[in-house]
Amino acid sequence: MTDQAILPPDSPATRPTLTLGKGHSRRLRAGHPWVFSNEIEMTVETRQWSPGGLVTLVDAGGERLGVATFNPHSLISARLLSRDPATVIDRAFLAGKLKAALALRDTLFDRPFYRLVHSEADGLPGLVIDRFGDVLAVQANTAGMDRLLPDLLAVLDDLLAPRAVMLANDSPVRGHEGLALEHRLAAGAIDGPVELEENGVRFIADLQEGQKTGWFYDQRDNRAAVARLCRGRRMLDVYTYAGGFAVQAAMAGASEVIAVDRSEASLALASGAAALNGVTIGTARAESFAEMERLAAAEEKFGVVVVDPPAFVKSRKDLAAGAKGYRKMTRLAAALVEPGGFLFCASCSHHMPVEDFATETARGLAQAGRTGRILRSAGAAADHPVHPWLPESAYLKALLYQLD
Amino acid sequence: MTDQAILPPDSPATRPTLTLGKGHSRRLRAGHPWVFSNEIEMTVETRQWSPGGLVTLVDAGGERLGVATFNPHSLISARLLSRDPATVIDRAFLAGKLKAALALRDTLFDRPFYRLVHSEADGLPGLVIDRFGDVLAVQANTAGMDRLLPDLLAVLDDLLAPRAVMLANDSPVRGHEGLALEHRLAAGAIDGPVELEENGVRFIADLQEGQKTGWFYDQRDNRAAVARLCRGRRMLDVYTYAGGFAVQAAMAGASEVIAVDRSEASLALASGAAALNGVTIGTARAESFAEMERLAAAEEKFGVVVVDPPAFVKSRKDLAAGAKGYRKMTRLAAALVEPGGFLFCASCSHHMPVEDFATETARGLAQAGRTGRILRSAGAAADHPVHPWLPESAYLKALLYQLD
Repeated sequence: MTDQAILPPDSPATRPTLTLGKGHSRRLRAGHPWVFSNEIEMTVETRQWSPGGLVTLVDAGGERLGVATFNPHSLISARLLSRDPATVIDRAFLAGKLKAALALRDTLFDRPFYRLVHSEADGLPGLVIDRFGDVLAVQANTAGMDRLLPDLLAVLDDLLAPRAVMLANDSPVRGHEGLALEHRLAAGAIDGPVELEENGVRFIADLQEGQKTGWFYDQRDNRAAVARLCRGRRMLDVYTYAGGFAVQAAMAGASEVIAVDRSEASLALASGAAALNGVTIGTARAESFAEMERLAAAEEKFGVVVVDPPAFVKSRKDLAAGAKGYRKMTRLAAALVEPGGFLFCASCSHHMPVEDFATETARGLAQAGRTGRILRSAGAAADHPVHPWLPESAYLKALLYQLD
Repeated sequence: MTDQAILPPDSPATRPTLTLGKGHSRRLRAGHPWVFSNEIEMTVETRQWSPGGLVTLVDAGGERLGVATFNPHSLISARLLSRDPATVIDRAFLAGKLKAALALRDTLFDRPFYRLVHSEADGLPGLVIDRFGDVLAVQANTAGMDRLLPDLLAVLDDLLAPRAVMLANDSPVRGHEGLALEHRLAAGAIDGPVELEENGVRFIADLQEGQKTGWFYDQRDNRAAVARLCRGRRMLDVYTYAGGFAVQAAMAGASEVIAVDRSEASLALASGAAALNGVTIGTARAESFAEMERLAAAEEKFGVVVVDPPAFVKSRKDLAAGAKGYRKMTRLAAALVEPGGFLFCASCSHHMPVEDFATETARGLAQAGRTGRILRSAGAAADHPVHPWLPESAYLKALLYQLD
């Protein structure tokens, strides 16, 4: 939270208006939730407005289009909260959005372990909340959401009475919004890693030290799909992190599981999860590419290989290098797959188009001299919904191949 | 089968060679399985070769690239069967492909109800086989596969000893290959519709009179995903065909199910399936758009609406009209979804790009004045694999929305 924690209450009558340039309201009217900086009439005054404040959007003809958060320093200047300009953005508004998000997850899942809020698609631009039972991990990735945080935390407390709330505000996207990085407890207390359950398997997330919010629920369905193939097969999980694919493979009856990560802390989480579930996995602390090359040189083969790396393409300028990385990753992994075995490749790079990822993995297969077929092409699980007008926000791409 | 049923045995030594033009072997070498008519050196002689015969592919420099079926009358002139030109295309070759396809399905499914062979992705270009226990429905959609049919049927008999094999050679794509349409029993006998099981629910397929092979296994996973949302909700299944979505919704505890189709025969299959499973569904024989308009006028609302129509875009020239059709379909269906309810839209149009389908459905929602989020974007189930170099063959696009 910031020093703007105590804000005047929102009022449609006194809220500043932000005027869109002529012809620039069409996309917003069609259903898109953003206004870009070149689409507004930026004045000396608006430029000085405090980042993250609320504005009423108005078109060039004076018609009011809705209420949004505004950041004069961001390429995405305004993010729509409501198409009704009379909406008051207060705790009741936030509670309504959170209750709707919760109702959806209640329909989708039996147990309270999921992404509770996924930004624009849940009507709360820039906000991400992952739920681990009575512990929440919250990311506010826009100035607007950052300013609403005190109210959001109050509403979350009313709604879910969490034991602890971790603010995982360490995404680099906060930089685009002029926000500092922070990772700290915002409410309550936790005394170590928390437990979660996914597909009936128990795991451990380290919210204090972990990556992002501590667990990647986005791969839930993909992990289930891969696990179904593992019975009786030897399985390799490259970039295992907290053991998501590896432990579910072991639980599904893999004959052997080896989990690779360069982080000792991650491997400890993975081994700990295996122990929690009464199964055993092997671990290898190593750089992923080097370890795949070593295994190939040793002529090791696996019935199922998973490669689920961190984003190789962190910005648009990394695209060529990242594409090559995915190709090489696939080539190295394919060499480890036994005939008839399965290869799961994923990219969580926002800037890697899905068709390019498919092409690069196909090239990687060809370079490895392997043929096969795509059994599954999927994105993130349903608790990571996609805004209909932001299809490019579907950052996760996963391909499951069977190889000949 | 055709009058070429008795063919001389294939031999790499005596097989004719088909020469690719200079520079035209690159895509094939990279992994693509097709050669187009403008990429080969068509001579007076090759033009007279019998459609569907086997050829050895040779590049401009004389290097042998593999063995393929050839059709001088098709835009897709050659379809690769093996990258090893020494491969003999005989019953042992076909048995190898079928055994691999069967092994994959054995891994994926507990029960013998699935697409057993899905064309190029299973290494048998143009061949589709759907399995209903001990009854098979076979489609040969290329001249090459048509000529191999007698051998294929013999191998299928060895491998699975089917009670009956239905030749569902009535796909219009056979026209591009110069093949006649036919729909007839090729082996054994059946005395009416056959039973199948999908996601633990029983259904009836009419292989003699039905559409295509009698059942659309491609929606298996999508039907499961939709069914999980149906408990306690009123559900509408537009274009129900044999009741796939409707009966699974009823089994999942929908409070009421209404299945719409213009065909009385389809509705009988759907009702019959419901009865088999001990549940009840309502049916409405009507044109889908008209029925959705009627329901909207009557202010009917549903918690879950499914619209899974036949292809609106049957050829590239239909794209604009088909796109409009999907938009209207979505607009009409969205009006019937209660707040917080779910809308599942599908397109099985090969020529409708996935991003255009997403755009048209998003526009349809906007025209209906509805907002929401995409929970699932998926293609066909894993028994409909995709060749890595033919991503455009992923004809099925499905979007599951929740609406506010």
